[in-house]
Amino acid sequence: MNGNNIVGATYVTTEGEPFFAANPATGINLDGDFKKASAANVNNALALAETAFETYKNIGGVLKAKFLRTIAEEIAALGETLVNRGAAESGLPIGRLQGEVGRTVGQLNLFAKLVEEGSWVNAVIDKAMPDRQPLPRVDIRRMLIPIGPVVIFGASNFPLAFSVAGGDTASALAAGCPVIIKAHPAHLGTSALVAGAILTAIEKTGVPKGVFSMLYDNGYEIGEQLVKHPTTKAVAFTGSYLGGMALVKMAQERKQPVPVFAEMGSINPIVFLPEAINQKAEELANKYAASITLGAGQFCTNPGLLLAIESPALIRFKETIAQAISAIPSSTMLTAGIHKNYDQLSGEISKIEETKWIAQSNQINDTLQNQSVAKVAEVSAEHFLANPKLHEEIFGPYSLLVIAKDIAQLTAVVAVLDGQLTVTVMSENKEIANYPALINKLTEKTGRLILNGVPTGVEVCAAMQHGGPFPATTDSRFTSVGSTAIYRFVRPIAWQDWEDSLLPDELKESNPLGIFRLIDQTYTKD
Amino acid sequence: MNGNNIVGATYVTTEGEPFFAANPATGINLDGDFKKASAANVNNALALAETAFETYKNIGGVLKAKFLRTIAEEIAALGETLVNRGAAESGLPIGRLQGEVGRTVGQLNLFAKLVEEGSWVNAVIDKAMPDRQPLPRVDIRRMLIPIGPVVIFGASNFPLAFSVAGGDTASALAAGCPVIIKAHPAHLGTSALVAGAILTAIEKTGVPKGVFSMLYDNGYEIGEQLVKHPTTKAVAFTGSYLGGMALVKMAQERKQPVPVFAEMGSINPIVFLPEAINQKAEELANKYAASITLGAGQFCTNPGLLLAIESPALIRFKETIAQAISAIPSSTMLTAGIHKNYDQLSGEISKIEETKWIAQSNQINDTLQNQSVAKVAEVSAEHFLANPKLHEEIFGPYSLLVIAKDIAQLTAVVAVLDGQLTVTVMSENKEIANYPALINKLTEKTGRLILNGVPTGVEVCAAMQHGGPFPATTDSRFTSVGSTAIYRFVRPIAWQDWEDSLLPDELKESNPLGIFRLIDQTYTKD
Repeated sequence: MNGNNIVGATYVTTEGEPFFAANPATGINLDGDFKKASAANVNNALALAETAFETYKNIGGVLKAKFLRTIAEEIAALGETLVNRGAAESGLPIGRLQGEVGRTVGQLNLFAKLVEEGSWVNAVIDKAMPDRQPLPRVDIRRMLIPIGPVVIFGASNFPLAFSVAGGDTASALAAGCPVIIKAHPAHLGTSALVAGAILTAIEKTGVPKGVFSMLYDNGYEIGEQLVKHPTTKAVAFTGSYLGGMALVKMAQERKQPVPVFAEMGSINPIVFLPEAINQKAEELANKYAASITLGAGQFCTNPGLLLAIESPALIRFKETIAQAISAIPSSTMLTAGIHKNYDQLSGEISKIEETKWIAQSNQINDTLQNQSVAKVAEVSAEHFLANPKLHEEIFGPYSLLVIAKDIAQLTAVVAVLDGQLTVTVMSENKEIANYPALINKLTEKTGRLILNGVPTGVEVCAAMQHGGPFPATTDSRFTSVGSTAIYRFVRPIAWQDWEDSLLPDELKESNPLGIFRLIDQTYTKD
Repeated sequence: MNGNNIVGATYVTTEGEPFFAANPATGINLDGDFKKASAANVNNALALAETAFETYKNIGGVLKAKFLRTIAEEIAALGETLVNRGAAESGLPIGRLQGEVGRTVGQLNLFAKLVEEGSWVNAVIDKAMPDRQPLPRVDIRRMLIPIGPVVIFGASNFPLAFSVAGGDTASALAAGCPVIIKAHPAHLGTSALVAGAILTAIEKTGVPKGVFSMLYDNGYEIGEQLVKHPTTKAVAFTGSYLGGMALVKMAQERKQPVPVFAEMGSINPIVFLPEAINQKAEELANKYAASITLGAGQFCTNPGLLLAIESPALIRFKETIAQAISAIPSSTMLTAGIHKNYDQLSGEISKIEETKWIAQSNQINDTLQNQSVAKVAEVSAEHFLANPKLHEEIFGPYSLLVIAKDIAQLTAVVAVLDGQLTVTVMSENKEIANYPALINKLTEKTGRLILNGVPTGVEVCAAMQHGGPFPATTDSRFTSVGSTAIYRFVRPIAWQDWEDSLLPDELKESNPLGIFRLIDQTYTKD
């Protein structure tokens, strides 16, 4: 396990005391010693990124695709070594890590396909009209170009799919931007293994070494230096509201402000319409008991808020969810800090006299550390409306059932919610058509609307939107999952009356890449 | 001339001392008394906008197009009344105002066409794959939806095309967003006339009255209240760096931060390559003397920086531009404040001993006020590199010729420039192909690259990019001119496994609007 910092795809030694990765279930340190990066590492990483960008931005979709696919292959080739290390560091089960390898590989291949095909640059051509009256029209051609070095913070809750070679890295590299990773201290070894795969891919494909650096820090200093560095052109982060907003503030106070794409949390309301509860109380209760506790509830799309109208069937729903939750074994949380927060925040719910626990697991594994116990609380809509504290996310296997008197009160509850990544509606026999005002209000609050599903799966595809109104994310116009995540790291540029031979291939008259282009208002591959 | 504030398309009377529009050429007050809006006007305008949004956002492309076209017709119908008032308030010539009416009408019609056709929403559909292994794929459909009420600050330098019914308003209304205009105090009467045209269009087409409000203030208070109001979802502004950044700060400090699309100035470098100067010194000098002084140099794309390499031909260029500029009559500037700034900032250039004036108009009209005199200064690249003061914009008919020893020094000058709206290269016999490093550096700095043209015309089309790296604009990913300006006021939203009959028409399986959609990675109208 090489725990050295990586600057321009090269391991560098650094002074200072090492720190270690630990297994959150046992507290035992794992193999490998990791060193905090230095200010010189930060400067060198960004200087090399800047130089590499000059080449990498023009390297072409075919080579970029080869690079991304080779990273995917090298990650897959790590096999059990990676899966076992990921599981040991995160407390997540092996099966989840296997799934995450699949998703990570799939994401890299998705972006490879996107850039190889090439139409993603949104080429638009308005041809000259020399005879137009009263003035001739010039020839204008626009496409998206990469913005430059991107700083990416690994997320604790997806040690692979949202970390070193996750969706942020895949989309930035696909766009043509070098990346500098701030490794998450909760999965140092997993980060080192994946970084090794990227280094091999760089060597095999010959892309400039400066396109990849990875720095370690068990504190905040290196992250701050990276965000404030003038060469950094954008930042991607998935984590807490406080962490995200601290980065936003730093980025805005720079001489040249840069965007921070921060995904900061969401309680992902689930609305159970009356007929759905009436017909399927038990099925829904079981479905949601599983969704709430998946991965110890440590998903950004975890359903933290269940909204329903009081009814006899809802009592059956509550009884069933109580039973289902009681049988769910405790789970190891990602870190001691996350576990402590979960215990503290869910403990504060206990102190609010208007709430009561309706479901709680009694399967606690006393032999392991950092165990989270699944819990569902209940509160009336009236009290929920009166207490903003209840609107906040509790990261972990927790959900709050809010019981409204009627659909108007339920709609009033939705109206006070913050922005969300997802909202879900459970509807039976098309009853959803009867509630346009509710659906309208839900639409305003979210980036994704789900019918009769659970929010905890996020399909990686072109149509996905994983980003909602503030504070779910800092910029609801972009997504961090799916192929359009690439649009976070580009800007448009227009060439006027430019020499055809000097235009990027994407804009040349002959369309040598054969991509879709919007020419004089029509999409065409001509 | 009705100078009352307009709240939800209704004139409202307000307490307080009136203020007046003045002719900057004469200092004489013009017809009409205008009242500062009240805090209640702000709140009412936003409350009515919020309510109107509920209807307007779903009103459909056909009716939105009719509304935009009717505004265009009503503006055109104002005829000489509007042109004369605009000229009297701005000091700009009648011909320029006539041109601006044409552009304003053209912009409104362009957005009408765009929303009537409908494909602008970027519909993306990834269909379900129930048989996919290991997990079925859900159906995901995404499109852009409007974000809500937009606050627009009229710009002083385009009393029509960037003001009450200018590109910002046209694109926001086209997106489906209500607008609240803060009228620019430099053209109060022009604003009132155009607002009247919008009110007529609202009446004729029956769109909700809350989609349009316009408030007056000869200070900053109302603008501040509008930006800070929780119902405001975005802000558009064209003006000074200090003004733009003040709005950005307010918008970022809100509980829910909102984007400010501020266009804040640019010196629009022109690079004269050696062969171009050699072959066409006189032609280029005359061309640029005209471009620098167009509209008293009060364009955001005014060429404020001329870059060239020392040569005998450059001496001829200087002689010719001196002659051309000397014959250009003084022009009335938009406001006394702008004129004072121009005199002060160009006066400061005189005090820098490394600069010298190489061209100065001697045609000063002493009978008029606020007259700007065209001026071109010269400085060596060495001194330019050493003095950041020289890199700043001087708004008006001013330009600085920077003379480099060689192409490397010229490239070094480009490297220190701030972000720009445009850069222009004058090239002869394809010499541009010999300077890839220079072109690369120019590309990094700008939103638009022009070959052998002048930057002072901005074509309104789909491929236009009018927005450059900070500080030219606050967000280089967007444009304020051309049909894609609409993307400033929308965000994507995805529907998962949604009921077809409840989807927006744009996403329904049958494609009832017949728009282009990206279905399973292919653009199609099916």
